[in-house]
Amino acid sequence: MTSGALFLGIDGGGTRCRARLTAASGQRLAEAAAGPANIRTGLPQAFAAVLEVSLACLREAGLSPRALSRTIACLALAGASEPADLAAAQRRRHPFGHTVVTSDAHAACVGAHAGRDGAIIVVGTGSIGWAELNGRHYRVGGWGLPMSDEGSGAWLGCEALRRVLWARDARVPWTGLLAALYEDFQADPHVIVRWAAGAGPRDFAALAPRVVEHAAANDIVAVELMRLAAGHVDALAARLAAFGAERLALTGGLTASLAPWLAPETARLLVTPAGDALDGALRLARDAHAEAEATKPRRRRA
Amino acid sequence: MTSGALFLGIDGGGTRCRARLTAASGQRLAEAAAGPANIRTGLPQAFAAVLEVSLACLREAGLSPRALSRTIACLALAGASEPADLAAAQRRRHPFGHTVVTSDAHAACVGAHAGRDGAIIVVGTGSIGWAELNGRHYRVGGWGLPMSDEGSGAWLGCEALRRVLWARDARVPWTGLLAALYEDFQADPHVIVRWAAGAGPRDFAALAPRVVEHAAANDIVAVELMRLAAGHVDALAARLAAFGAERLALTGGLTASLAPWLAPETARLLVTPAGDALDGALRLARDAHAEAEATKPRRRRA
Repeated sequence: MTSGALFLGIDGGGTRCRARLTAASGQRLAEAAAGPANIRTGLPQAFAAVLEVSLACLREAGLSPRALSRTIACLALAGASEPADLAAAQRRRHPFGHTVVTSDAHAACVGAHAGRDGAIIVVGTGSIGWAELNGRHYRVGGWGLPMSDEGSGAWLGCEALRRVLWARDARVPWTGLLAALYEDFQADPHVIVRWAAGAGPRDFAALAPRVVEHAAANDIVAVELMRLAAGHVDALAARLAAFGAERLALTGGLTASLAPWLAPETARLLVTPAGDALDGALRLARDAHAEAEATKPRRRRA
Repeated sequence: MTSGALFLGIDGGGTRCRARLTAASGQRLAEAAAGPANIRTGLPQAFAAVLEVSLACLREAGLSPRALSRTIACLALAGASEPADLAAAQRRRHPFGHTVVTSDAHAACVGAHAGRDGAIIVVGTGSIGWAELNGRHYRVGGWGLPMSDEGSGAWLGCEALRRVLWARDARVPWTGLLAALYEDFQADPHVIVRWAAGAGPRDFAALAPRVVEHAAANDIVAVELMRLAAGHVDALAARLAAFGAERLALTGGLTASLAPWLAPETARLLVTPAGDALDGALRLARDAHAEAEATKPRRRRA
């Protein structure tokens, strides 16, 4: 049985929430996953998922829920890059001995560079650039559809549908990609309109794999969209480089698909991530613990 | 006191609902206005507005509500271009002697060309192209944000905010337009994100006048946006011309602002609208009445 401090890293995304528990020694004790934990789209649901994965980890490690009180947790949550949402999350009563709340982008950056200076661009459902340089955060993009998140899966899906409607209006020729997407919507623009009225970023992003697949087959519209998406990622990369980042890791579901389309200036900065957002969250939990220990008044020896 | 058939044209938009009542002679009897009548965003609210303007017209003409039964009404309603919404509107029990329901774009086209062949592009909150040619309808665009309505007020507002966020991220230089819009949102990107989460097309379109105003002062971003918007209108115009339209009327709030930026190919097609959507709706009401009379079995003479 493990005694002493426990460290819990949680990566709460818009699609699912993952957690990893380690002992003070660094030994990995358990991992678990649950539903989405985006605090912007629902604080209670996000924290229900956080509690669920935390308890699942303890159970897997053969520990009782009482061990939460000696757990130092870092909750890296989608949506926590918005100050009001972050503050609301921090105000909540947490069951852990000590709790750090931060954004998933921050934890991903810390994980990708093992705590050293560097930058990441997350290109998944959304897109965001983040850098950690000399103890400071830098953020570029990631402000959400319809005004931002260019190059992301949601953006790709939306731009693909835009071109489906152009083809329906005979403004551009049909291509394999456009015809396939149109068929998905019963070849009826009104079906697209009704679907879009209730669609969120995840729904639009679900269309992105079609674009990737058709780009691989040289579909002219799919290739154009991949080039445009890569151009947006290049623009984020250029900005992060201008802030001083010399190492850039790409993470998120579109990483492998976009890589071949990136500019040489971006490719030159790319490094393989040392770890993921869970590693970053665990590192941040340990840093917070070490800091708390360092500032704690020492017990006098007898 | 007017006896015989009455004709009522109603132009129900996303912002307000206007009505005009005429006698069988064509004499204008009354006009009235009420709140929005977009059936896509709310059928009961739209029909409450329709009833309100109809009764207001009768009151102004010194007629009792019983006159509704001898009124031939054409309801030209925003959202009626979607077949499911149009069908729902047609299924309703209407208080009029005879009711025609159609889209505002259709009525605007009929009004602009006084029933002759021609095309219109509406550039207001949204954008749509419509043509009436040899008794057939043609439609281009107008499928709504975020995938369509390019060049509209909502599109302009959204694209302007995109560039505000780029400037905040130091991806593009600040301009007068971008700085002014940023100030509107307390110079805080998170305020923009929160606002956008609850913003609809009308909210985005409310920013368009800022773009127009700064373009007049040669703001480099505002000029770029007006050029892009005009390019989208040009693309709709080219499509309508390809369908066979030889006369094009521009209507909607952005008409005057966009006109100077249009391509010569578009400008060449432009005509001054003969009338507005209310005129078109009244014409469609009269046409429906004439058709009903023509097909009615004649009363035998004694």
